[in-house]
Amino acid sequence: MSNGDIFVGEVIGTAILILFGAGVCAAVTLRHSKARASGWVVIAFGWGFGVLAGAYTAAPLSGGQLNPAVTIGIAVDTGKWGKVWVYLLGEMVGAMLGAVLAYLVYLAQFQANARKEDSTGDADDEPLPTLGIFSTIPEIRNPVANLITEIIATMALVLPILAFGLTKGLGESGTTVLIVSLLVVGIGLSLGGPTGYAINPARDLGPRIVHTFLPIPNKGTSDWGYAWIPVVGPLIGGVLAGLVYNAAF
Amino acid sequence: MSNGDIFVGEVIGTAILILFGAGVCAAVTLRHSKARASGWVVIAFGWGFGVLAGAYTAAPLSGGQLNPAVTIGIAVDTGKWGKVWVYLLGEMVGAMLGAVLAYLVYLAQFQANARKEDSTGDADDEPLPTLGIFSTIPEIRNPVANLITEIIATMALVLPILAFGLTKGLGESGTTVLIVSLLVVGIGLSLGGPTGYAINPARDLGPRIVHTFLPIPNKGTSDWGYAWIPVVGPLIGGVLAGLVYNAAF
Amino acid sequence: MSNGDIFVGEVIGTAILILFGAGVCAAVTLRHSKARASGWVVIAFGWGFGVLAGAYTAAPLSGGQLNPAVTIGIAVDTGKWGKVWVYLLGEMVGAMLGAVLAYLVYLAQFQANARKEDSTGDADDEPLPTLGIFSTIPEIRNPVANLITEIIATMALVLPILAFGLTKGLGESGTTVLIVSLLVVGIGLSLGGPTGYAINPARDLGPRIVHTFLPIPNKGTSDWGYAWIPVVGPLIGGVLAGLVYNAAF
Amino acid sequence: MSNGDIFVGEVIGTAILILFGAGVCAAVTLRHSKARASGWVVIAFGWGFGVLAGAYTAAPLSGGQLNPAVTIGIAVDTGKWGKVWVYLLGEMVGAMLGAVLAYLVYLAQFQANARKEDSTGDADDEPLPTLGIFSTIPEIRNPVANLITEIIATMALVLPILAFGLTKGLGESGTTVLIVSLLVVGIGLSLGGPTGYAINPARDLGPRIVHTFLPIPNKGTSDWGYAWIPVVGPLIGGVLAGLVYNAAF
Repeated sequence: MSNGDIFVGEVIGTAILILFGAGVCAAVTLRHSKARASGWVVIAFGWGFGVLAGAYTAAPLSGGQLNPAVTIGIAVDTGKWGKVWVYLLGEMVGAMLGAVLAYLVYLAQFQANARKEDSTGDADDEPLPTLGIFSTIPEIRNPVANLITEIIATMALVLPILAFGLTKGLGESGTTVLIVSLLVVGIGLSLGGPTGYAINPARDLGPRIVHTFLPIPNKGTSDWGYAWIPVVGPLIGGVLAGLVYNAAF
Repeated sequence: MSNGDIFVGEVIGTAILILFGAGVCAAVTLRHSKARASGWVVIAFGWGFGVLAGAYTAAPLSGGQLNPAVTIGIAVDTGKWGKVWVYLLGEMVGAMLGAVLAYLVYLAQFQANARKEDSTGDADDEPLPTLGIFSTIPEIRNPVANLITEIIATMALVLPILAFGLTKGLGESGTTVLIVSLLVVGIGLSLGGPTGYAINPARDLGPRIVHTFLPIPNKGTSDWGYAWIPVVGPLIGGVLAGLVYNAAF
Repeated sequence: MSNGDIFVGEVIGTAILILFGAGVCAAVTLRHSKARASGWVVIAFGWGFGVLAGAYTAAPLSGGQLNPAVTIGIAVDTGKWGKVWVYLLGEMVGAMLGAVLAYLVYLAQFQANARKEDSTGDADDEPLPTLGIFSTIPEIRNPVANLITEIIATMALVLPILAFGLTKGLGESGTTVLIVSLLVVGIGLSLGGPTGYAINPARDLGPRIVHTFLPIPNKGTSDWGYAWIPVVGPLIGGVLAGLVYNAAF
Repeated sequence: MSNGDIFVGEVIGTAILILFGAGVCAAVTLRHSKARASGWVVIAFGWGFGVLAGAYTAAPLSGGQLNPAVTIGIAVDTGKWGKVWVYLLGEMVGAMLGAVLAYLVYLAQFQANARKEDSTGDADDEPLPTLGIFSTIPEIRNPVANLITEIIATMALVLPILAFGLTKGLGESGTTVLIVSLLVVGIGLSLGGPTGYAINPARDLGPRIVHTFLPIPNKGTSDWGYAWIPVVGPLIGGVLAGLVYNAAF
């Protein structure tokens, strides 16, 4: 795969992933959305099928990694680091592009959210904070506990992906991509409770940058004090998964 | 594939798709339905498995496109426009047939809805508007924002479908059809909040025609003022997906 | 396949189907069940994965038809009627066995249901009717409308199954069985609202017989006045699906 | 497969299974979890996709049995008992490891649960019992009925798994692992209501040991009086499934 194909594939694939992921958070959060308050199961399946859409689309070009933690885990496993920077660059650009696309899909809802409402019948008439649509926010702010959560949840993503590679190449088989996407659904359902499961540095950092610079009225804080945890935690998790995989398999 | 096979396949497949899709909207909306108020996750999976049923059934005859935006996107990609009109015709006829079938399945519920009720214990005793069972209605009426939503959501459908074709023919493999159907579930969960995700001109226009002419008592407006958006938006999205695909892959 | 294998396969497979299906209805309905009131999505997936479990288990022995409407539809299509009686017999015996197994799984809940309760905090302290766990009950009792619902819903099951057979043998491929099971989930979500989607004469009649004769305390009516509709409707639907299939494909 | 590979595979695979399973119970139960009170469908899919993740990861090393009832059922079927002890040992160690990992993921939530809260707006300000996150608790305590439930539910797991083996080796095909995981989702939805569906002695006993010894503040009882049922019931179910399979197939 050429550097150009890898870059384009990761940009398109990660943009689709974040379009679906930020999209489902907007769908469940914002007023005047048909999916409002439809619950955690919708969040988890929305993100998982975003992986399905993004990874399958990117597969012919780049293999569809879409996640620096996966890229690093594969590099630790294989020892091949030469193209890692191309993957990371594509993933970051794609994540930012996807966040902008999700914002455009919910443009009217973001505009309505910025206004105080009196007529909806909802109790929450004030503008709601919008960061949770773009990036993760912990339920309990505890750096050590939050880091542990992200490390273990990311290992639960990357270790199975590495093991899947023993029998089938990631991205070559539709079944493999489907299973990875359901794995992501499962991580959301089971391990997403404390921190909202970044498990992907680009998924959290890219949209946070977009949230910071996009002129969303009444958007609330971008919470940069927390931003290092969903970057560092998943990277540690990816490295640990690579090491465990090499030791065990 | 002969024109006859294509037409019959698209009619049957699109009819099944709309039977399931309009059916699940009736199931969640109408009084005296066991699935009433069962939420957005039911809507999204109902439509997605309608794609599964319709596309798999139509696959041996027509490949199971079921959607003018997909048909146009494939034509932009391949440059083959000769049979496009057969697909479009079949999709429109099938969408109207499916809407009638869904109406028949919920016949007693539609009849009950037309009557003011006092004994159900429900607060909403007045006849409910029925258009939302047949066609899409935006939560916030904003032509520009609604168009953008439909364009991006349709690109999120057609671009992956085109990419899937690189490794497997659509309709030849059960796994491919399954993945497309879960992709549609994901679009519903993530991108359906603002407009109800037509992402398919036939899916919206066909049932709207049926809603206009079917003698449903107390059916409410057919809202033709909005009807062009779920036709034009998905067509633009399909063309853009074909262009992006040709540029990137 | 020998008659003995077909009979044993259909008994085991249909018993598993009804164990899951009646089980999930008990799970959602009965007091002191962890899944109580968990909604229509649980019902639909429970029945669908019952098809998955039963059909996959029965596949090596009988192909896993588990449904007289499917058996009749295949016979209309192929013209082979010689072993139909073996399938039907196995499906009826299996459906009754499965209903007994589901009763045993929820034995303590059925016993608790028979007692008036004062301490649960639930409003419904009186014994609840139990027929809905075993057989279907229409939301609106209207024989013509109920028949139409069952006929169309069964066609939506059998026509895709016949079409699947064009590319892959039912029961030979895991993917095919998976798709049929998700098809059943979709029928439940989309078309189950009016009558509870029997779409299978054995699924309704077998458990109704068990409900009539099993000594469940305070079990309520077995409603034999409605029993012909979920038998006749699906049989008509199966025949029509076979005829449509032969005409179209 | 060497004893070392089997042991390592079962430890890793069962640890992942319990990480997801105990994790989803924590996610739905504990205060300050984003998935709190998200319902039975989340529980059932969380456990099922835990099977997917664990079995697929373990498959290249040990085949991914992850459950003494499955191991015993396969041994009854094949007559090969030589490596059963290695599987059982790995499954128990893995289950305990997974329970510790799930505890670490929800560390801040467990700490918060130990404190009486006044400010959450929740009615339940007292520390909640935590055993249900680790092990099963029956809704109605009735040893005979609870045993019957676990026996039948385990047969509904092991008999299909044995039948799947006729056409495809467990763990060799992604589709087979996927189907087993959806089978587990179905068992949870349909048969989990009375006892919480242990259907796996290691899944219940391992985390119960961890719950007993882990210094969780205000953790409540470990309920050893019930502990034999989710061990004995599934073992009986596994043996019966092996016998039925040998008789029928």
